[in-house]
Amino acid sequence: MYELIIVGAGPAGLTAGLYAGRYGLSTLILEKAVVGGQIILSEKIENFPGFPAGIETNALIEKMRKQVENVGVKILMQEVVKIEFDNTLKKVFSPEEVFFAKAVIVASGASARNLGVKGEDKFIGRGISYCATCDGPLFKNKEICVVGGGDRALEEAIFLSRYAKKVYIIHRRSEFRGSHILEEEAKRSKKINFVLDSVVEEIMGEDRVSTVKIKNVKTHASTSLNCEGVFIFVGIQPNTTFLKTTLNLDKDGFIITDENLKTSAEGIFAAGDCRAAILRQVVTACGDGAIAAHSAHQYIAPYK
Amino acid sequence: MYELIIVGAGPAGLTAGLYAGRYGLSTLILEKAVVGGQIILSEKIENFPGFPAGIETNALIEKMRKQVENVGVKILMQEVVKIEFDNTLKKVFSPEEVFFAKAVIVASGASARNLGVKGEDKFIGRGISYCATCDGPLFKNKEICVVGGGDRALEEAIFLSRYAKKVYIIHRRSEFRGSHILEEEAKRSKKINFVLDSVVEEIMGEDRVSTVKIKNVKTHASTSLNCEGVFIFVGIQPNTTFLKTTLNLDKDGFIITDENLKTSAEGIFAAGDCRAAILRQVVTACGDGAIAAHSAHQYIAPYK
Repeated sequence: MYELIIVGAGPAGLTAGLYAGRYGLSTLILEKAVVGGQIILSEKIENFPGFPAGIETNALIEKMRKQVENVGVKILMQEVVKIEFDNTLKKVFSPEEVFFAKAVIVASGASARNLGVKGEDKFIGRGISYCATCDGPLFKNKEICVVGGGDRALEEAIFLSRYAKKVYIIHRRSEFRGSHILEEEAKRSKKINFVLDSVVEEIMGEDRVSTVKIKNVKTHASTSLNCEGVFIFVGIQPNTTFLKTTLNLDKDGFIITDENLKTSAEGIFAAGDCRAAILRQVVTACGDGAIAAHSAHQYIAPYK
Repeated sequence: MYELIIVGAGPAGLTAGLYAGRYGLSTLILEKAVVGGQIILSEKIENFPGFPAGIETNALIEKMRKQVENVGVKILMQEVVKIEFDNTLKKVFSPEEVFFAKAVIVASGASARNLGVKGEDKFIGRGISYCATCDGPLFKNKEICVVGGGDRALEEAIFLSRYAKKVYIIHRRSEFRGSHILEEEAKRSKKINFVLDSVVEEIMGEDRVSTVKIKNVKTHASTSLNCEGVFIFVGIQPNTTFLKTTLNLDKDGFIITDENLKTSAEGIFAAGDCRAAILRQVVTACGDGAIAAHSAHQYIAPYK
C-alpha cells in the first residue's frame, strides 16, 4: 500500500515524484516504456528554463530521475493497464501485479498521432518514422519528407537536415503555427524545401518507401515526390485508453481536470501531456507535476 | 511600440520572455527592482526539476536571464506604476516613460506579508527581517526567532541555523503544512527549537529587538522570549496595487485568470506569484510564463 502512485515517468510524473517525495508521501512511479516519455524522442531542448545553451533531452531527464531518487521515490518499469477505485482505495493494475494507493496521479503522456493515409501502416519501420532522433541517422545522404507544420515538425526537419541530402517539409497550410525562431532557422537551411498548402495522399513503394503522393489543397493538383523516408509529426494522441469509462475525457481522449488538476474521480489527479490543456511543453508538464502532487498531498493528508 | 510587454523579471516573466522571443514577438521586460524576484531572497532551490544537487537561486536566475537575452529580449529596469488599455493598444507607464504594446503579461510577483503586530514597523531593519539570505549572517552566534509554519519558514530556519546560536520556530499550529522533508531536517538540527500553537503578540526592545512576547493559543498563557532577531515568513501579498480598478483581483489582490491565463482585460495575461492559484513555486511560475506567452502570441498573431 502506497500513499501515492504516479502513472508515467516523463517530466510531469518525475516532478510530481520530486514534490511527493519532499512532502514525505510514500510514492511509487510506474513507467511502461522508458523514463522521460515523449521528449526523449527529441535530441535537444532549448526552451526549458535554466539551460541557456539548451540541453540534450537524455541529460535533462537523467537529472530529473536522479533528483526524484534522491528523495526516496522508486520508479518501477511496469505498464498500467487499468485503474479501479472507490473513495478510499485506488487499485492500479499492471499485467503482472496489483498496486494499492490512497491517491493516483495520471501522467501517462501522449504518443505521435498517425497521419491516417494509405500506405502508412505498411511502411512503418520501412521508411516511415515518428522519431527523428531514433531514425534520422539511417537516412544519411537520402531525400526525405517531414509531414507537419508545428514546432515539432520544424525542429525535427532541422535535426534531420544534418543527415539527409534534402528535406521536404509538407505542410497543409501556407503559414506555420509556433515558433518564428524555428521557421527562420529552417528557411536558412539550404537542404530544407517547403511544400506548402499540401497534404500527403498516399505513401508508396515496393519493400520500402520510394514515393509520396501529394495534393495541393488550393489548386487540387496531385504530384509525386521521390523520397526514401517519411517522418510524421502531425500532433499527438493521449495515452489514456486504459482510463476509458474511468475518468472524464475530452473528445480527443485528453483527461479533463480543474485548475488544481483534480479529475472527475476523487483522489485521482492528472498532469502533463495526457491532460486537456492549451499548451504541452516540458516546463508546463513540470508545473503540472508540482500542482498535482500538491493537490494529492492535500487529499491524502489534509492540513488540520 | 512593442508587440508584448512583460511586467516583472522573476521566473514567470523570464520564461514568458523566452517563449515570446522564440515566437518572434518584439518583447520588452520591465523590472522594478531586481531580476529574479522573490526567489533570490532564498539562497538555494532544491525542487526545481533538472538540478539534482539543488542550485543557488542567483545562479539559476542568471541562467534564465541569459537564456532570455539569447533570444533577443531586452530587460529594462523601470517600475510599472499604471497600465491603461483599450482593445487594440496597451499603455504601460513607468514614472519616467510610457511604453506601448499590443499585449501585456503581468508577472509582477509578490512580496513578504507583514505579521501585523505591535513593534513590527518600529524594528524593521533593526532586528526584524523578511530575508534570511540577506540578513542571516548578521546574527552569528545570536538567538533568533523565525515566525511561520510553511515551507519557506522551515527552509529559512534551517538556513539561519548555520549562523545563529539558537533558532526558535514560532508557529500558530501544532502541525506543519508543506514538505515533510524540511520538517524532518529542522527537527534533526540541535540548534532549532519549536514553539508550537503560539503566536507573536508584540516585538519589543530599545533600539533593536530584544524580546518577543508570545501567546500560546491553546493555554492562552503569555511568555517572553529573549532574541535579537525576528525573521517573518507568514505568506505573501501580490504586487498588484498598480492594477487596482484595472483587472479583476481576488479578495487578497491576486489576479484572477482563466486556465489560459487570460485576465478580465482583453490582451492582458497574468503569470506566476501575482496570480490567484493553489500553489506558487518557481516551476509553476515558469509553466505559467510559457502558457501566458502562448496565449499572448495567439492574441497578437492568431493563426489563420
